[in-house]
Amino acid sequence: MITTPAVGELVPPNRTLMGPGPSDVHPRVLRAMSTPLVGHLDPSFIEIMNDVQELMRYVFRTDNQWTIPVSGTGSASMETAIGNLVEPGETVLVPSNGYFGGRMASMAERAGGTVVRVDAPWGEPLDSADVQAAFDEHQPDVFGFVHAETSTGVRQPNVPELTRIAHAHDAYVVADCVTSLGGVELEVDDWDIDVAYAGPQKCLSCPPGASPLTLSDRAMDKVLSREHPTRSWYFDLSLLEGYWGDERSYHHTAPISNVYAIREALRLVAEEGIENRWGRHLRVAGALKAGVEAMGLGLNPTDDCWLPSLNAVVAPDGIDADDAIDYVLEHYDLEIASGLGALAGDIFRIGCMGYSARPENVALLVAALGEALEAQGADVDVAAGFDAMRGVLGDG
Amino acid sequence: MITTPAVGELVPPNRTLMGPGPSDVHPRVLRAMSTPLVGHLDPSFIEIMNDVQELMRYVFRTDNQWTIPVSGTGSASMETAIGNLVEPGETVLVPSNGYFGGRMASMAERAGGTVVRVDAPWGEPLDSADVQAAFDEHQPDVFGFVHAETSTGVRQPNVPELTRIAHAHDAYVVADCVTSLGGVELEVDDWDIDVAYAGPQKCLSCPPGASPLTLSDRAMDKVLSREHPTRSWYFDLSLLEGYWGDERSYHHTAPISNVYAIREALRLVAEEGIENRWGRHLRVAGALKAGVEAMGLGLNPTDDCWLPSLNAVVAPDGIDADDAIDYVLEHYDLEIASGLGALAGDIFRIGCMGYSARPENVALLVAALGEALEAQGADVDVAAGFDAMRGVLGDG
Repeated sequence: MITTPAVGELVPPNRTLMGPGPSDVHPRVLRAMSTPLVGHLDPSFIEIMNDVQELMRYVFRTDNQWTIPVSGTGSASMETAIGNLVEPGETVLVPSNGYFGGRMASMAERAGGTVVRVDAPWGEPLDSADVQAAFDEHQPDVFGFVHAETSTGVRQPNVPELTRIAHAHDAYVVADCVTSLGGVELEVDDWDIDVAYAGPQKCLSCPPGASPLTLSDRAMDKVLSREHPTRSWYFDLSLLEGYWGDERSYHHTAPISNVYAIREALRLVAEEGIENRWGRHLRVAGALKAGVEAMGLGLNPTDDCWLPSLNAVVAPDGIDADDAIDYVLEHYDLEIASGLGALAGDIFRIGCMGYSARPENVALLVAALGEALEAQGADVDVAAGFDAMRGVLGDG
Repeated sequence: MITTPAVGELVPPNRTLMGPGPSDVHPRVLRAMSTPLVGHLDPSFIEIMNDVQELMRYVFRTDNQWTIPVSGTGSASMETAIGNLVEPGETVLVPSNGYFGGRMASMAERAGGTVVRVDAPWGEPLDSADVQAAFDEHQPDVFGFVHAETSTGVRQPNVPELTRIAHAHDAYVVADCVTSLGGVELEVDDWDIDVAYAGPQKCLSCPPGASPLTLSDRAMDKVLSREHPTRSWYFDLSLLEGYWGDERSYHHTAPISNVYAIREALRLVAEEGIENRWGRHLRVAGALKAGVEAMGLGLNPTDDCWLPSLNAVVAPDGIDADDAIDYVLEHYDLEIASGLGALAGDIFRIGCMGYSARPENVALLVAALGEALEAQGADVDVAAGFDAMRGVLGDG
């Protein structure tokens, strides 16, 4: 018996989003989301597509013609990258130091690839010597790494060295930039990255649904000369080439409102200036880091691979991290998250991304997290946290 | 050299959307799109997910537990259906009477299936006897058909007969309901359809980005007992089961705003009542059909397989259809479309879907199309078109 559901008005709570994503969406981007639609083949939409591609190249720091939003969330751009670049029988090298390297492996296997791994502990970056050794041993065709590991808060610092090793072995490099694009220094062309992808709901502060992807001509040549078609029709770049390339012919209906939104989100990056935006993330996340450290908490990664957009703060001994996370959500409408995988329960994952990277958010975080820990009897110095935070912000 | 792009404010033209989709989005749905986000694992979002699933079951006319929005546009829900249900080596029967049967075939092949076809001319539905013969000859494991062919304006009228044939051969039935869900009578449970999918931007008048999918327990059992994982990680229902099932664990970031929007779009269907909504489409599209016929134009399909949501109007001899389409866009900001594939240039595809299925839109369509045809020297009787249109609308 199918009855008519009684579902009320949409009234979600008003959260402050300082978890691993989504981040707070800028009001101008929300407004773009509510713009009445034109058709996905409308001449005016073609112009909007051009704008998005141009802005996305600016934010990726690339001249790659092949720079598009994929019609799905971040994992969709990831699967588009892996699924198109990897052909059955090829060897794919992925990292084992975080959650998203594992996801890469799963996608590479489904693409018909053979997965080999380069190891580092969760919470540490890959060492160049280990990558070199893995290349010498396995001679992979494709090497995927994670520039900004959302699960561990680690920034991979030696990217140009990694791409140099890969290219010396004639391999293609795929960079997961989900949590770095638009917030953390990333130079696709200067660092010689073949394929990079990201999510819009992190440092771009855009609702998820259309996800940045860029490929060099060299990578796109590999895709277009595949022996067998990709295993996904929806993500097939040789077909998407018809829509996002010169022809602008129908492939699938683009997520029009999400394209509107990412255009506005990218436009905000261009207005701020990409270097200024990286600087803001360093400063505001630096205040967050100084604040929690002055309260007596430590960050999980070492300073040389600290990831400003995702701060992995170690939960003090005796603290139930999940209870503290529930506390700040309940008392302050503030979202932060727990660890994933090997770090579940051990760390807080505190995002400082895009429009969420503001002093008022950091102040709320220090106050709310301090109170949540005190409520569990922890000895934290919230006043010292505020002082340290203000010290960093005062420099800006 | 990467320069900062100078991209201005987002100011798309204000179109009336009467093409094959997207349709005009209801203002309440646009407002839902601009709602500030909560996280995809927020307790409040879990409730929103429950609402969406309950409303979607109502609109599909099903009790299927496995009823979810797929994180992508309509082709994403299509690929999720085909990619999960079809295992390598299985035989898949698809129709050859329209564009989207061809897309189904391409997806089935990429899933490792062997494609066989049941034929009917473009612009005609499948005949039960032909389907029976194809089953007897090929013994397919999966049978896909298109309930509402957006490329030809044909409604497949004999669905219960088709599913009976398929089930007598122990096959699974996948129904493409992209252009019927929420506008044209569809009874997933009563008609014994195993898997149905749709797009949100047609008769639901919701921006594309989260697309309805429903599977029976029998179909989901097949998916969960696959020998090999699906070839897509992003669309793997055995993994999505963790997020949309009882566990609500992380798989990928849901397109939160699109889920907000489809909740509101489905809520509008429930407020109107699904049977009333089917009736409105019949009445308003009936007025459109009467109007263009009274002007002297014909529809491509016969009346018994007329599809109210997508009217395939034959372009008169000597008329350049593309010029007429450009004319109404330029003079009236009105979007209609040309034929696809075998019908390119021969027909106008005029949508009458969801919020676009309103008397004012039909009046505009009759006026604008009539003028565009007159501008090319055609002998059309616009006044008769208006009278016929008003005659049908007056009955409502």
